[in-house]
Amino acid sequence: MPKSEAASLLERYFPAWEHLSPEERTALLSNTMEANYKKGVCVHGAERECIGVLLIKKGTLRTYMLSEEGREITLFRLGNGDLCILSASCVMDAITFDVQVDAEEDTETLLINASFFSRLMANNIHVECAAYRIAVDRFSDVMWAMQQILFMSMDRRLAVFLSDELSKSGGGTIMLTHEQIARYIGSAREVVTRMLKYFASEGIVELSRGGIKVLDKNKLKGLIK
Amino acid sequence: MPKSEAASLLERYFPAWEHLSPEERTALLSNTMEANYKKGVCVHGAERECIGVLLIKKGTLRTYMLSEEGREITLFRLGNGDLCILSASCVMDAITFDVQVDAEEDTETLLINASFFSRLMANNIHVECAAYRIAVDRFSDVMWAMQQILFMSMDRRLAVFLSDELSKSGGGTIMLTHEQIARYIGSAREVVTRMLKYFASEGIVELSRGGIKVLDKNKLKGLIK
Repeated sequence: MPKSEAASLLERYFPAWEHLSPEERTALLSNTMEANYKKGVCVHGAERECIGVLLIKKGTLRTYMLSEEGREITLFRLGNGDLCILSASCVMDAITFDVQVDAEEDTETLLINASFFSRLMANNIHVECAAYRIAVDRFSDVMWAMQQILFMSMDRRLAVFLSDELSKSGGGTIMLTHEQIARYIGSAREVVTRMLKYFASEGIVELSRGGIKVLDKNKLKGLIK
Repeated sequence: MPKSEAASLLERYFPAWEHLSPEERTALLSNTMEANYKKGVCVHGAERECIGVLLIKKGTLRTYMLSEEGREITLFRLGNGDLCILSASCVMDAITFDVQVDAEEDTETLLINASFFSRLMANNIHVECAAYRIAVDRFSDVMWAMQQILFMSMDRRLAVFLSDELSKSGGGTIMLTHEQIARYIGSAREVVTRMLKYFASEGIVELSRGGIKVLDKNKLKGLIK
């Protein structure tokens, strides 16, 4: 990738770019590399080293928690132009937890390495401030997810999920298994299957091999209110 | 309260004090007032205005989420010397959620009013940075709570078990070890111990050698719904 492309992406998306000195900009560029992830690949996890800050050029990164039993709770997703900062949690000492991040589709990123980012934060309060501010944005995302998970009844949770998937896919059929949906919404496969059958009996969806077709968007939306 | 007491408390606990100009220190002092809360009083909530930043002199503030059905999930507690920043969420635009805060015991605080704090953050990046950093500390607390509460609905499973045992034994103390309970509900002893400690901190049970005394049956039942 020509330097100019990285520079123009950082200029556009790096939140404290306008507060960097020319030297800091040069150093940032030379500590930024391309990092591309195939769909399904683990980008960041408890066992892996803390890689640094990722700027997503194209694709989707999903952040989730993983229980000892392997159950996943999706916390939030990041897309084009977003900065993934929890993958640099090791250099932000107010962050004492760890999460998993994986590539939900083929994803192209710019990776700013952790040790450089740590030095930059220490030397430039605007960068430090921006990093914490982005972390607080993610805090807001997590609180939203928590509200969904803790307080919504299953039918509502499933309806919210299907509705989100529908708007992402541009309508039509959702190509996910019940197992996958269960993992996304933090439930069990059996519960999802039972609820989907109920939705089908209500004429909200039509179930087929490997896919869920939404027949009645209004009725689905009605469950969300 | 003499000004000097507030000044010495702010000097000690306000995280960006050393970066304030003499004028800012004077302004901070004149925008800080005493605010004392009786045990059980709501300090901050969705319906109430955003009061500002609280510095806890003495006591405990509990932060929790409230569902539409009135179920509470404790997120974290703050004590002497801590800064309660989520009660100023309205002046930090990266915070898009709201929480409830109440006084868990009689609590004495210094209240820095929201509109002054907002101006101070806008004019002094050290204050802004400190505020976001503290918010990220709370993010870490929330992630810990989430891990405790969420996975496998351990809280609910344990509550169901204790409630059943209670009605079998006719109330009072449940004479089982954590190891035994873990075996009954299909979990690990460490997980049961951690969750029982959480229940104890919530005033639901009292733990003693070889026994668990249920103090608040209604709260226990509230977890089962």
